[in-house]
Amino acid sequence: MHASERSTSTLPHRGSARERILAAADELFLTDGIHNTGITSLIDRAGIAKASFYSAFKSKNDLIDAYLERQHDDIVSRLHVIADADDSPEEKLSRIFDLLCTFWVQASYRGCLFVVAQIELPKSELPARRWARIHKLDVLSILGPMLERAGYADSDELAEQLCVIFDGILVAASIRPESEAFDRGRSMALALLNAASRASKKRS
Amino acid sequence: MHASERSTSTLPHRGSARERILAAADELFLTDGIHNTGITSLIDRAGIAKASFYSAFKSKNDLIDAYLERQHDDIVSRLHVIADADDSPEEKLSRIFDLLCTFWVQASYRGCLFVVAQIELPKSELPARRWARIHKLDVLSILGPMLERAGYADSDELAEQLCVIFDGILVAASIRPESEAFDRGRSMALALLNAASRASKKRS
Repeated sequence: MHASERSTSTLPHRGSARERILAAADELFLTDGIHNTGITSLIDRAGIAKASFYSAFKSKNDLIDAYLERQHDDIVSRLHVIADADDSPEEKLSRIFDLLCTFWVQASYRGCLFVVAQIELPKSELPARRWARIHKLDVLSILGPMLERAGYADSDELAEQLCVIFDGILVAASIRPESEAFDRGRSMALALLNAASRASKKRS
Repeated sequence: MHASERSTSTLPHRGSARERILAAADELFLTDGIHNTGITSLIDRAGIAKASFYSAFKSKNDLIDAYLERQHDDIVSRLHVIADADDSPEEKLSRIFDLLCTFWVQASYRGCLFVVAQIELPKSELPARRWARIHKLDVLSILGPMLERAGYADSDELAEQLCVIFDGILVAASIRPESEAFDRGRSMALALLNAASRASKKRS
């Protein structure tokens, strides 16, 4: 899972330096890469003074940390909305695939943002590696209980298997955009649900 | 799928400049990252003169191309050996998971090498993007016929689904090394095979 949906590619003309820098990062990190985007480019794009950057963030790493935290919070809150809705598990899964697909339609799509960040910053233990891990674990901590409430036995293992499918199709979609990865993932996920034993048909 | 297995971390003292540079790349690209490894580091590591680098490769991109081609050839030839062996489809899949696992045990493991290369080099259309695509398609072109020979209906789709699992567990293994991703992938792959319809129980 990855970058938040963007309603527009233009940056806010208002807002704090911090908000403007985060918006600039959101554009440039995706199109040019996190590693390749220097502070000078971010300042230019945000239309702020260099001093404003350093009053908002201690360093580029500090900005990356804030950026990944925001993307994480955004995705996790969307997943909570889906998990808590009054839908069947199948409908919830389908909505998760819709969510994954909204990121993929961006021209600059390169795969799960947290995977991208961890790979782009191989020597930075923090914050990319930390957020990649937090993100994957938090997604599991939403899916597992969601499946448990729906009555699935071994719901944590089922959540892990669904995440294997999510990550696998995001790789396929980034390398082979024509591969119909999301349709395939949806079928695989539904087949997993159908095959999983369900103690009771409680409403999830 | 990714880097070839390395029997040793020491570089060859003999061999052409080309071989020494490729061996240096094999070490440094994994540990420091492809993007981060400069020609100077490669020359130092290979113990050759700068002129020797440029007589062997036109540019760093030319080296990346040769490096990815070699890794691809190595993995594909191993997969052919597995696919052509006198084993059951289940045994063959198990051997593919063993192969994936041999890359993962490297301390510098960061996921499928071709995914890593494509993400690390976002602006380089070639060669990383090209090889990532070739690699994924060639893996499918080995798995599909392997499954068809074993009598599976819709063998190409089954191969695609297996590759979703491969890619998904490589992501999980890189971010959460403790997640038992390979065991999970093996179970998921075997469950897929069991659920797939098989026209005839031919020996594959």
